[in-house]
Amino acid sequence: MQQFLGVDDVSGSVSDLIEKCLAIKADPKASRYAGENKTLTCLYLNSSLRTRLSTEKAARNLEMNIANLDFGSGWNIELLDGSIMDLETVEHVKEAAGVISQYTDLLAIRTAADLDDRETDYQDRVINSFVRHAKVPVINLESAIRHPLQSLADCITIQEQSSRPRPKVVLSWAPCPIPLSQAVPNSFVEWMRAWGEVELVITNPPGMDLDPDFIGDTPVFHDQAKAFAGADFIYAKNWSSYQDYGKVYTQGQNWRITQELMNRTNNGKFMHCLPVRRNVVVDDPVLDCDQSLVMEQAANRTWAAQGVLLEILGELRKE
Amino acid sequence: MQQFLGVDDVSGSVSDLIEKCLAIKADPKASRYAGENKTLTCLYLNSSLRTRLSTEKAARNLEMNIANLDFGSGWNIELLDGSIMDLETVEHVKEAAGVISQYTDLLAIRTAADLDDRETDYQDRVINSFVRHAKVPVINLESAIRHPLQSLADCITIQEQSSRPRPKVVLSWAPCPIPLSQAVPNSFVEWMRAWGEVELVITNPPGMDLDPDFIGDTPVFHDQAKAFAGADFIYAKNWSSYQDYGKVYTQGQNWRITQELMNRTNNGKFMHCLPVRRNVVVDDPVLDCDQSLVMEQAANRTWAAQGVLLEILGELRKE
Amino acid sequence: MQQFLGVDDVSGSVSDLIEKCLAIKADPKASRYAGENKTLTCLYLNSSLRTRLSTEKAARNLEMNIANLDFGSGWNIELLDGSIMDLETVEHVKEAAGVISQYTDLLAIRTAADLDDRETDYQDRVINSFVRHAKVPVINLESAIRHPLQSLADCITIQEQSSRPRPKVVLSWAPCPIPLSQAVPNSFVEWMRAWGEVELVITNPPGMDLDPDFIGDTPVFHDQAKAFAGADFIYAKNWSSYQDYGKVYTQGQNWRITQELMNRTNNGKFMHCLPVRRNVVVDDPVLDCDQSLVMEQAANRTWAAQGVLLEILGELRKE
Repeated sequence: MQQFLGVDDVSGSVSDLIEKCLAIKADPKASRYAGENKTLTCLYLNSSLRTRLSTEKAARNLEMNIANLDFGSGWNIELLDGSIMDLETVEHVKEAAGVISQYTDLLAIRTAADLDDRETDYQDRVINSFVRHAKVPVINLESAIRHPLQSLADCITIQEQSSRPRPKVVLSWAPCPIPLSQAVPNSFVEWMRAWGEVELVITNPPGMDLDPDFIGDTPVFHDQAKAFAGADFIYAKNWSSYQDYGKVYTQGQNWRITQELMNRTNNGKFMHCLPVRRNVVVDDPVLDCDQSLVMEQAANRTWAAQGVLLEILGELRKE
Repeated sequence: MQQFLGVDDVSGSVSDLIEKCLAIKADPKASRYAGENKTLTCLYLNSSLRTRLSTEKAARNLEMNIANLDFGSGWNIELLDGSIMDLETVEHVKEAAGVISQYTDLLAIRTAADLDDRETDYQDRVINSFVRHAKVPVINLESAIRHPLQSLADCITIQEQSSRPRPKVVLSWAPCPIPLSQAVPNSFVEWMRAWGEVELVITNPPGMDLDPDFIGDTPVFHDQAKAFAGADFIYAKNWSSYQDYGKVYTQGQNWRITQELMNRTNNGKFMHCLPVRRNVVVDDPVLDCDQSLVMEQAANRTWAAQGVLLEILGELRKE
Repeated sequence: MQQFLGVDDVSGSVSDLIEKCLAIKADPKASRYAGENKTLTCLYLNSSLRTRLSTEKAARNLEMNIANLDFGSGWNIELLDGSIMDLETVEHVKEAAGVISQYTDLLAIRTAADLDDRETDYQDRVINSFVRHAKVPVINLESAIRHPLQSLADCITIQEQSSRPRPKVVLSWAPCPIPLSQAVPNSFVEWMRAWGEVELVITNPPGMDLDPDFIGDTPVFHDQAKAFAGADFIYAKNWSSYQDYGKVYTQGQNWRITQELMNRTNNGKFMHCLPVRRNVVVDDPVLDCDQSLVMEQAANRTWAAQGVLLEILGELRKE
């Protein structure tokens, strides 16, 4: 693996990568010196809890050094070529990425969608600009439109928890009062499709369909109850509108995941990437019951990150 | 020690813990591998200088890994069960504490009082909610109503500096223009009482008495000069009102610790947890003279933290 | 080296220090245990990218521990003796520096000019107050009026890249829409003069001369094109006015570094400390051509920091 921006960067099959991550989980210190004398620099343009702690834990398990840079209060970085930088931007990504590359062996970036202009967000400019100008492998810790380490952790979780081949997995939209990006659902669909070991179904309110390029030939149901029938896994997530870009769908309160809805599944497991708004996205009894896998998903973030780091370190060593 | 929220968590006697910390101070690297492959994650919901640097130094002396998370700009975490999270809070402490527990071996938290509603503050909700939902030992790096690592460092300092058994220790209120919490004085009284090796006296203006549950049977003088008579240690600290909760007492300017006041003591030592407003809480000559122990107190923060970490690590190893 | 505030702290000659840094660059891990069990604490009162990452990399190469403290959102520290601290300041530098010294072996500080009152800035109060009260060596990571680690990296770069003895080096003012400090140009002039191995020339608009104490006998040209003639190195940098303190010179747009200007040099190399506003300070073709050394300068920040750390650690070991 030369970099990790999305599922397309997986060198072999998704199944193989999942197996590697599960082997790491079984023996986290087996490759403990793989990252010795290597440094992972993480740029947080947005705040992060799970991603940060799981990535640090993974890096420590490989004896890597970690350098974190927080830009929560803003980093006015210029992304466009040829700009006359006489306004807010104080540094061009060409210098920023080039310079950071000289101080680190791997570069990880966390950023987010602006949810303002769809075209801009879907170009995923921040991370792609760093990739273009960096001299070291780049890892996506969530970008405007993808969250691949989350999706890999979700694959691992489904692989571990599935009681039958080709389980039915339902990605269900759920309500939220503030606009959230499509990064998690986009990536989830992308990874489930690339993995090919589940029967994926998406359900969301009319007008809230995801980007057709991500959906592909995945069935989309606008009737949530129907979609849930016989499901083995329910993956709940809110997203703001792709069509009416960034808008919150305010009529979706009845899309909340209730025990009643879960009863329509095949004793289905509940999944969510967290953080989750309780009793808005999902009812307490669903989140708190034995069928809830949210803690398992979060725990698997470590093994997803460690698997990816190990793959990239292996590639670095070849050079 | 299973956790460290306050003096009640000390397994043996306070005297024994003080002796252990002094033994660590004499040979800081004696147990240097006690924390190997263990991670301490520190959540800073408030800024911290002494607590952060001393805790990191203690953890490094034990070869622990450290992961710091800063939430200075806010972390909208829901503490109440059953809430419908459709407003500001974006994550419930149940998920936050559960998730973090999966990435760390010990969890330390720094938070502060709101000084708005007394009942809420005195429930110490943030730290107690994390304790309730965490799966790993929790360490109090200052909460709404307690600062036990400071108090343990204060005990160590008094033990080192006392020239006679059962010294007279005076906790004196001192002025400050902004409202400060009662965490430090509460803890100080609690630890002095539990330790039992000093004669503790409190002095503060009328109407500024601390919570009766913390005071217990400690004598409270509203005449500062009288209280100082024959004291071996003066521990100065401002706090806002417990009775008229969170209010600043503006008529207390003459409670500033002056050399004249110190002259009433038994060649008494001056103590303060820092940071201190010079010439408001205490006059320069008092803070700068040889009798001032503020630097010794700060230095002992390291050995207090290391003693507590070592106790908890010992317990973890038994499991 | 007892501390590193500026070129005056270099124990031997600047040339010797440059050679030491180049030897480190050739074999970064040669002294890898020099910093074992030592901690470098860095206080960032201003944000930092290059300085932070290069200093961390240098410290890691010496196996030092690193503790970073960010004060981006402000640290109300009192610098004046005898102050009655009843306003914004909550801690005196005497306590802050004294306390931090007890938790660390070296203390590094990043601060910046206020560009408000010249006399205050040129007293370099923050860093000098820490030096006065710290009990450990202090390292300047950029202060109100100096940036010595940048200048040392610049010396290393010129030493590496010069094709002839005593190259002509031109420090050229360049435009910028916001007020920047004189720290970088002050230090650059100071180091070039102390080094003595280059022919230094300064060029800036009339009224934008630097502090005469820094300039000394360095020739200053107000005609940029004339100054560039035959130059081996052009070092571009904006600074706000020293005379009309902190003011932006708005008529200087034609001082931008263009290819046309570079053509007047002796196939001169282009230097800038970064971050740089493209097409405001310098045109894209100049920054992007082979003659541009900005990446080399940034890379050499690591070896400058490592050289300085190694010198100070050597001194600590003698004690």
